[in-house]
Amino acid sequence: MWVLIGGSAAGPRAPVLSRKIKKNGRARARFEQLGTLTSRLPSTMQHLRHCKRFALVSFPITPRQLKSPIPAVSVRSGFLALHSRSSSQDQHHSRSRRLRFRYAVTGLVAGTGAVLAYGLAQYHNKAEQATIPLTQANSLPVYSREEVTKHCSIEKGIWVTYKGGVYDITDFVAIHPGGDKILLAAGKSLEPFWALYAVHEQEHVLEILSEYQVGVLQADDSKEDIKSADPYSTDPPRHPALKVNSLKPFNAESPTAILTDSYITPSAIFFKRNHFPVPRVDPKTYRLKIEGLPGGTVSLTLDDLKSHFPKHTVMATLQCAGNRRSEMNKVKQVKGLNWEIAAISNATWSGAYLRDVLYHYGFGPELAAKARHVQFEGLDLDVTGTAYGASIPLNKAMSEEGDVLLAYEMNGEDLPADHGFPVRVIVPGFVGARNVKWLGKIIISEEESQSHWQQNDYKGFSPGTDWDTVDFKSAPAIQELPVQSAITNLTDGSSIDRDMENVTVKGYSWSGGGREVVRVDVSLDGGKTWHVAKLQNSKEGETSAPSPPPGQAWAWKLWEITIPLPEGAQELEVVCKAVDSSYNTQPESVAPIWNLRGVLSNAWHRVRVKVK
Amino acid sequence: MWVLIGGSAAGPRAPVLSRKIKKNGRARARFEQLGTLTSRLPSTMQHLRHCKRFALVSFPITPRQLKSPIPAVSVRSGFLALHSRSSSQDQHHSRSRRLRFRYAVTGLVAGTGAVLAYGLAQYHNKAEQATIPLTQANSLPVYSREEVTKHCSIEKGIWVTYKGGVYDITDFVAIHPGGDKILLAAGKSLEPFWALYAVHEQEHVLEILSEYQVGVLQADDSKEDIKSADPYSTDPPRHPALKVNSLKPFNAESPTAILTDSYITPSAIFFKRNHFPVPRVDPKTYRLKIEGLPGGTVSLTLDDLKSHFPKHTVMATLQCAGNRRSEMNKVKQVKGLNWEIAAISNATWSGAYLRDVLYHYGFGPELAAKARHVQFEGLDLDVTGTAYGASIPLNKAMSEEGDVLLAYEMNGEDLPADHGFPVRVIVPGFVGARNVKWLGKIIISEEESQSHWQQNDYKGFSPGTDWDTVDFKSAPAIQELPVQSAITNLTDGSSIDRDMENVTVKGYSWSGGGREVVRVDVSLDGGKTWHVAKLQNSKEGETSAPSPPPGQAWAWKLWEITIPLPEGAQELEVVCKAVDSSYNTQPESVAPIWNLRGVLSNAWHRVRVKVK
Repeated sequence: MWVLIGGSAAGPRAPVLSRKIKKNGRARARFEQLGTLTSRLPSTMQHLRHCKRFALVSFPITPRQLKSPIPAVSVRSGFLALHSRSSSQDQHHSRSRRLRFRYAVTGLVAGTGAVLAYGLAQYHNKAEQATIPLTQANSLPVYSREEVTKHCSIEKGIWVTYKGGVYDITDFVAIHPGGDKILLAAGKSLEPFWALYAVHEQEHVLEILSEYQVGVLQADDSKEDIKSADPYSTDPPRHPALKVNSLKPFNAESPTAILTDSYITPSAIFFKRNHFPVPRVDPKTYRLKIEGLPGGTVSLTLDDLKSHFPKHTVMATLQCAGNRRSEMNKVKQVKGLNWEIAAISNATWSGAYLRDVLYHYGFGPELAAKARHVQFEGLDLDVTGTAYGASIPLNKAMSEEGDVLLAYEMNGEDLPADHGFPVRVIVPGFVGARNVKWLGKIIISEEESQSHWQQNDYKGFSPGTDWDTVDFKSAPAIQELPVQSAITNLTDGSSIDRDMENVTVKGYSWSGGGREVVRVDVSLDGGKTWHVAKLQNSKEGETSAPSPPPGQAWAWKLWEITIPLPEGAQELEVVCKAVDSSYNTQPESVAPIWNLRGVLSNAWHRVRVKVK
Repeated sequence: MWVLIGGSAAGPRAPVLSRKIKKNGRARARFEQLGTLTSRLPSTMQHLRHCKRFALVSFPITPRQLKSPIPAVSVRSGFLALHSRSSSQDQHHSRSRRLRFRYAVTGLVAGTGAVLAYGLAQYHNKAEQATIPLTQANSLPVYSREEVTKHCSIEKGIWVTYKGGVYDITDFVAIHPGGDKILLAAGKSLEPFWALYAVHEQEHVLEILSEYQVGVLQADDSKEDIKSADPYSTDPPRHPALKVNSLKPFNAESPTAILTDSYITPSAIFFKRNHFPVPRVDPKTYRLKIEGLPGGTVSLTLDDLKSHFPKHTVMATLQCAGNRRSEMNKVKQVKGLNWEIAAISNATWSGAYLRDVLYHYGFGPELAAKARHVQFEGLDLDVTGTAYGASIPLNKAMSEEGDVLLAYEMNGEDLPADHGFPVRVIVPGFVGARNVKWLGKIIISEEESQSHWQQNDYKGFSPGTDWDTVDFKSAPAIQELPVQSAITNLTDGSSIDRDMENVTVKGYSWSGGGREVVRVDVSLDGGKTWHVAKLQNSKEGETSAPSPPPGQAWAWKLWEITIPLPEGAQELEVVCKAVDSSYNTQPESVAPIWNLRGVLSNAWHRVRVKVK
C-alpha cells in the first residue's frame, strides 16, 4: 500500500490519496481521497502508520483528477535514489511546513509532470534491524546530552535521543498520533517513555523516527539511556488463563470459555485494563487526598477510611469502553486494544460510600450549588509524573442511589494490585475508565477532569467522523454505557453435532446507568425469529434475587436458553440482543455505530456455527 | 381469509391454522400454525377478528400435516348448511370448552375424514346491515331486562343485550381481546360500553356477537338502551390541523408538517391521547386526594396547590408509547392506534413539585422505607366508574432530580381540557401513559397500580411473543422510553428537485430518563454514509441553552442538516438516528423490535424520496 500525498507542495490543504502503486513504479489506479493535510493531522499519520511507503506529490490535484484514473503514473529514474540524502540537507532546518518529508528525491510522473518526493522506502530494511542506532552515523554531527537538553521547546526545537541517535522532532509534534504527550520527552531520551508506551516498539515507528535524525549522541551519554530499567518489572503475577492484549501496560480480558461459569467473576480472571505500570503502594503510608472541600485539603489514611465510615458492599459489573472493539476493526481499522467480548466482569466491591466521606469532611449545599464534577487521580503515573485521571458528574457521586464507593475490597478480599490496591473508586453503571484505581486524589470541581482520558479519549463519534474531522470537544465523555450482551459458549466457526436435539446458548447481558436487563432475545437464524432466554440475576441461579430498585441494577445478568436444533440446518447464525428497563435495545450491526476509537461496540452479538 | 382451527375437538391445545380456503369449498393449501388454543386465547381471537370466516376442525392435526399441503381439502355437502342452528341448540349451554362454535354443522374433508364445524359464515351478510337487532327473532325466546340482569357472573352465565338482542357471552369472556373489562357489562346493555370503546363499532365485532344470541329483549326494555346519551358530547373543540386517529375517545397526533417549526409545541396542536371522554371538572369543587400518608387521606383544593407550594416550570417532551406504531403494522399487524411519527410534542409545564406536596403532608423516612410506588388515578372514568390509572416508582417521584410536577399550567396557561384541566401529573422522561391527566387521586403504595394500563398494556415483548404466548407479568411496565428521532420535513414517496444543490433534512430527537440527545446522524443513502446534524435545544435556536444537568434533559432537541444532493441520484433513502448521553442508539430496523402491542417503535426513521 502506498499513500500518495498530493497538492501544492504538500501544503496544508493537500489531499491525501490512497492506492496501491505497483512496485515497479508503474500503475493505473483510481486514487481515493482519504482526507486533507489540515492542522489536524493525526488521521494522516494513522494512515501512514499502516503504510510501508508513502509519496509526496508536489503538484495540486483537482477533484476531477481524484475521481478519474491517473492514466499512466509511471515513476521513472530517480525513484529509488532515496539515499541521496544530502541533496535535501540544506532544507533540513526549514519548518515552514507542518509535514515534511526530508529525504526528497525527484522522480517524474509521466503524463502529469509532477514531482514525487519519496520518504521512508529506503530506510525500511534498516529499521527492521534497528536495535542499534538507526543512523549511519559517520556523516552526522555528534551532540552531548547537555546540548540535546536545550532543545526542549517549539522555539528552540524539540530534540530527543533514542539508542544513540539524536532526533529533531519539532515538525513531528503536530502529527504525533498520541498528541501533545510527546512534548514530555522534549530534550530527553525516548527510552523510558517508550518503555511505558509499548505501542512504539514497532518497525514503522522506528521508520518514522529515522526521518528526523540530525546527529548522534556522545558515546558516554548514550549508555545512560540504554540501561534504563523496565518500569513494569514490579507488576504483579497474573493468571495464565487471561487473554493478554498488551503486556506493558498490562491489558487482558477474561477467558471467554469460563467467563459466565460464575456469576461473580473470580478476581484472578476479572479483566484487567491498566494504562501504566502497577504502582506498588504501601498501605501504611498510603494517603488519599481530597481537594476542593470548604475546609481545605483532607488527607485520609487507609485506616481512616476503613474505621470511620460504614462499610458497604455493592455488586457491580465493570466494562471497558473498548469491549468488543475487535468487531469494529472488522468494519474498518480503529485505534485501541483489540478487545474481544470479555473486557467485562462482575464482582462485589466493599468500602465507604464516597458521599459519606465527602459529607463527613464538610461537603454542603454551598459547594453543591457550585461544583459539578468529582475528579479522580490514580497513583499510576507516566514517566513525567502525570497521573491517570478521570471525573464523574457530581450528582452521580452524591446521589443516595448512586452507590459510588471508595472500595478497598474486591470479592471479599483486599483489592488485588491489578485492581487498584489499596483503594479504587467504583462508579456503578459507568464505563470502566472512570473507576479509577490506586486512587490518590479526589478533587471536587466546577470542571471535568482535564486528563487525556476524559477529554480526548473514551468518547463516541459518528461513523462519518474520521481523524481529520474529529473534534473531541463535540462529544461528551462516556459515562453510562449502553445496553450490551454477548454469547460466551459458542465461538465463530465452531461446529455442533447434527444429532443433537437442542442447541444451548449462554452469555452475559448488562446495561449502564443501573438499568436492569429485562429481556434477552436469542435467534438461531440471524435474527429472523427470536426466542426469549432465561435470565440469572444472582450467583444462586435464575432470577433468585429480587430486582434491585429502579436505576440501581449494577450487576449483569447471565442468560441461557435451549432451542430445538432446526431440522436440516447446515449452519446457524446465533444472535443475541438484550433489552434494558428503559427498553433500549442493541443496534443490529456494527457499521452504523462504528467510531474511530472503537468504543461502545454493542451491536447484536453474532456467532456462526456449522452443523455437522 | 379463513382460519382453520384444528385439534382434538378443538381442545385446549389445538393448533390454529391460517390459510385461504377457496370459496367453493375446495383448496390445496399449505396451512401455517398461528398458535394453539391455550387458556390464553386473545391471540386466537385477534386472528379471528381479522377473518371473515373460520372453521373448526375436530381432528388432531400432527405437526407433519401442518407443514405439508393437505392434499384435497374438499368441503362437501352440508358445508353451507349453517342455518340449521337448531341442530346444535342442545349443546347451547354446555361450557365444557373454552372456545365453542355453536352453530356446528358437519362437513367432510376428503382425505382426512375430519369433521368441520363452521362458524360465522352465514351471518356475515346480516351483520353488515345490523343497525337493527341482529337476530331473526321469531324463533328465539323473549327475555325481560330483569331476567337479563340476573346473568351477571360466570356461575349464572354472563348475558348482555345489544340493540334488542340478548346474548350469552359466557364462553366469550376468556377470548375477549380487551380482557376482563368485558365483565363490567355483565347483565347489562352493551351500548354505553361500546360508546366508550368505539373499537367495537366494526362489522366483525357484530359477527362475533351474533354467535352468542340466545334471545330477544322485551320491546319496552330495549328502548331504554338505545336512547343512551353520547358520553363524548361534552368533549372540547379541537384544532382542525390535528391528525385524528380516533374520535371517541379522542386521539390525534400533531400535524407533522409543522411539528418541528416550533421548539415548544402550541397546546392546540400538542398530540392528544385520551382513553375516555374528557371529564369536565369544576375548579371550584375540584379536590385532589392523597392516600397512604402517615396522617391519613389528604384532600387539596386547586387553590391549596397553587398558593401553598412554590410554582416550578419544567420543559418536558411527552411521547405516547405507541408513537410510530404504524411502522410496526407494516411488519405485522399489532393492536392499537395507528400512530405515525407525531404522537410526541414538547411543552412547558408549571405547578408544584410532587415531592414538595408529599413532604409537606408528612412523607418521611418511615414511609420511604416501606413504599415503592406512587399511583395516580384520573377523573376520567369508564361507564362503571373505573378511573384511568398508572403508577411510577417512588424514587422517581421523590428524587430532587426527578422534577415530577403536579402541573396546572401548560405553556403558561391553565391546562386545556384535553391535557388534564385542572391538574395533571408530569413525569418527565417517562412514557406519556404515566402522566395522568385530570388527576383525582395519588396513592403512596407498596404496589404498582393494578390498572389495566399498568399491568396488561404498555409493556414491551419479544418479536417472537404473540397473543397466545404473552405473559404480561413477564415484562416491566414501560416507564422511561428509549432514544427516538424522526424526520419531519420529508415524507415517503415525495420528490425533490434534481436541480437543487442541497437537501435539507429536519426532525426531532429525544430520549427518556432525562438522557440528553448528544448526536443525530443523517444519511441520504439508507445508512451507508452518515452526516452529523445541528441540534437545537431551545426555542432561541441552535444549542443556545446550556446543557441541563446529567439525567435531567427532559426536552427534545430539534435538528437540521443540509447535505449536497448526490450527483445522479434517482432516489434517496433519507435516514436519521439519534444517540443519547448513555450512547444508546436507535435500532436499525423495525422487525427485530416488533411487539404485539406495537409500542416502543424507535427504529431508524427512513423516508424515501424521489429526485426529479
